[in-house]
Amino acid sequence: MKAEILCVGTELLLGDIVNTNAQVIAQGLASIGVNVFHQSVVGDNDARLKTALRDALEQCDCVITTGGLGPTYDDLTKETAAGLFGRKMVLDEPSLRRIEAFFARIGRPMTDNNRKQAMMPEGAQILPNDNGTAPGLILEQNGKRLVMLPGPPREMRPMFERQVLPVLAALTGKTLVSRTVHIFGVGESAVEDRLRSRMLALQNPTLAPYAKDGEVLLRVTASAESRAAAGRLIDPVVDEICGQFGEAVYGVDAGSLQAAVVRALNEKHLVLASAESCTGGLISKRITEIPGSSAVFHCGICSYANEIKEKLLGVRHETLERYGAVSEQTAAEMAAGVRALSGADLAVSTTGIAGPGGGSAEKPVGLVYVGVSSKNFSTVRRLTLGRGYGEEREYIRTVAASNALFLALQAIRQADPKQP
Amino acid sequence: MKAEILCVGTELLLGDIVNTNAQVIAQGLASIGVNVFHQSVVGDNDARLKTALRDALEQCDCVITTGGLGPTYDDLTKETAAGLFGRKMVLDEPSLRRIEAFFARIGRPMTDNNRKQAMMPEGAQILPNDNGTAPGLILEQNGKRLVMLPGPPREMRPMFERQVLPVLAALTGKTLVSRTVHIFGVGESAVEDRLRSRMLALQNPTLAPYAKDGEVLLRVTASAESRAAAGRLIDPVVDEICGQFGEAVYGVDAGSLQAAVVRALNEKHLVLASAESCTGGLISKRITEIPGSSAVFHCGICSYANEIKEKLLGVRHETLERYGAVSEQTAAEMAAGVRALSGADLAVSTTGIAGPGGGSAEKPVGLVYVGVSSKNFSTVRRLTLGRGYGEEREYIRTVAASNALFLALQAIRQADPKQP
Repeated sequence: MKAEILCVGTELLLGDIVNTNAQVIAQGLASIGVNVFHQSVVGDNDARLKTALRDALEQCDCVITTGGLGPTYDDLTKETAAGLFGRKMVLDEPSLRRIEAFFARIGRPMTDNNRKQAMMPEGAQILPNDNGTAPGLILEQNGKRLVMLPGPPREMRPMFERQVLPVLAALTGKTLVSRTVHIFGVGESAVEDRLRSRMLALQNPTLAPYAKDGEVLLRVTASAESRAAAGRLIDPVVDEICGQFGEAVYGVDAGSLQAAVVRALNEKHLVLASAESCTGGLISKRITEIPGSSAVFHCGICSYANEIKEKLLGVRHETLERYGAVSEQTAAEMAAGVRALSGADLAVSTTGIAGPGGGSAEKPVGLVYVGVSSKNFSTVRRLTLGRGYGEEREYIRTVAASNALFLALQAIRQADPKQP
Repeated sequence: MKAEILCVGTELLLGDIVNTNAQVIAQGLASIGVNVFHQSVVGDNDARLKTALRDALEQCDCVITTGGLGPTYDDLTKETAAGLFGRKMVLDEPSLRRIEAFFARIGRPMTDNNRKQAMMPEGAQILPNDNGTAPGLILEQNGKRLVMLPGPPREMRPMFERQVLPVLAALTGKTLVSRTVHIFGVGESAVEDRLRSRMLALQNPTLAPYAKDGEVLLRVTASAESRAAAGRLIDPVVDEICGQFGEAVYGVDAGSLQAAVVRALNEKHLVLASAESCTGGLISKRITEIPGSSAVFHCGICSYANEIKEKLLGVRHETLERYGAVSEQTAAEMAAGVRALSGADLAVSTTGIAGPGGGSAEKPVGLVYVGVSSKNFSTVRRLTLGRGYGEEREYIRTVAASNALFLALQAIRQADPKQP
């Protein structure tokens, strides 16, 4: 099945909002093996919308629209579609009752233009909206399907996932399964160089790389008549990649480095702490964004000033004097210090120059030391993350934090598990 | 001038990433009065890309593409465009030297496929890439302009803003200037209710609201023949809004709450500290993302465990026993504790239930206390941020951190300045 996603809204054309709806729908369709050939965005303009809808329906079996179902005068997607399918607009009584009930619940008067939201193309399958007033709909004609969803992500997402995906999944009769191998510390080009011939040779499963901030994700996707059969196609390729990249693989379907760290800590019943300078709390922020991290992360110190490094973390004054705050020695003492202070099993630290100011010839912007301290495994790594252009503070902080998390993962792997 | 944005990338069609590039470009074009009629996304597929490019060039004066300029075999946007314009691909020596210098700088070997990035359509205007290896380009033919930009947002954005927007702005001959009033703690509907008649009445400047995570931005935009003339149209409206929303305005063109906080601290030569529980380091991460924050932020403690709240921050054991970690009393003691510990002039704190677990009838998910402690102004605010649907951990953490930053700003406003 070929699909197109057509998002309607002048606010998207003006760049007032980012189009998260397209991503949610694309992901959902990919998961059931529907090929999205095209995504597009048009404004709330009848003529252009009509052209875009007609073109999309010509090229694809299924067109999914978002937006334009609202109560205001410029929301006209439904009317345009009804015209294209040669249907009249008729009042849908159940939808009207739901809208009336909604307004009664929130205690606001219902206006005439809200009533317009209950007018639907004749013969459409109605998709009730549990999170707002505009119902969605599915129109079918000559083997083509048009699915119309509301624009607000909070209304669109549940309607799409609960009412649309199951209908389309039943039609494809095909299951697409993906597994993702997460690789850290190997550049995208290097990964591709090593896998190019495999990527070109593989048909089912396919193998595709995706790189971001020092990480490379390799997605292995198979199409089969069942999840189990797809899994049998995927697993040998995943094993092969894991063997090939060894230590650099931090997980399969791991979500993120921080999720992998929290999972590994949970498995061994270990507790991690952090002492951050240049990353300024980013490590603890990333760990604590994982639900349940409170069991394995109790304490993070952002010691941005030298005084705090000394007073709180016990970094020696001589160390700071002799080697400076951005040094291997300081990173090591920070990690050891926060581990002792917090009573954690392991600790990570960062100290470096995130820029744009503060660099020197000897210690340039992008120089970062990340440290780890545990019973069995303590080390410091020196990173040179500067790439010589201006706005890289965020990049340097992100990649420094990722390196610290990756180092933590290696230390956790080497640590003895504790009793729960 | 009519424009279309065409984003190339299978990862967009599969929903692996959200299309922030389209938003950035759309905003930029809107700011210089260029109408975006259409946005679309196609995969890395020669035939479909060709059709999309041809259609776009037929309908618009200017087509801006992103993506497909990378080093890998499936990046072929440039070649497709060259074919469409009847140009040969030729080696651009300056681009090659920049790419070689880049690899020398980061100390990684340059592969043959990186060399491909220096091949450009003959006669193209080259846009050097200050943030990566793939140069962009502008092709002009028969009054149509094709602008090709790299896909990674970090590379695309500065190239677009510095090298493309000025060229297009010169063509439109119109200057569009915007100023943004930042409002915190007033709901979007409430802001709209108060400004509706003004928004409808204003033509030049226009007034448009944009809401996100507890903040409302009001953008005032004027079109004139010069920046100064546009400013004269904008300033009275900005003053009017600032007067109307008073304390809730945290800045004009302030960038972000954290940028406003760092600026205010710098102005009064004050130092802030943070003690975070449910926000887990997000506040210190946000403050330290601002260059130069090290002068005004020395210490942030993420005290995720009660034990750390007691031991490090001096929260009394009885307080935790009697009122619990999520309480007004704990928030107050955390803020006072980290202020004493760090020697800062002011401190903020957060403690709450970010979910999805950990909630109860008495203390539901989304209950958060944010505290501030300073010489003149200490208080705790109780927030109920839960909206009753599942995935709101990130929302709760973000809005809690924003409330703490806003509270810090109020405390800074009331504080006496120090001598530099």
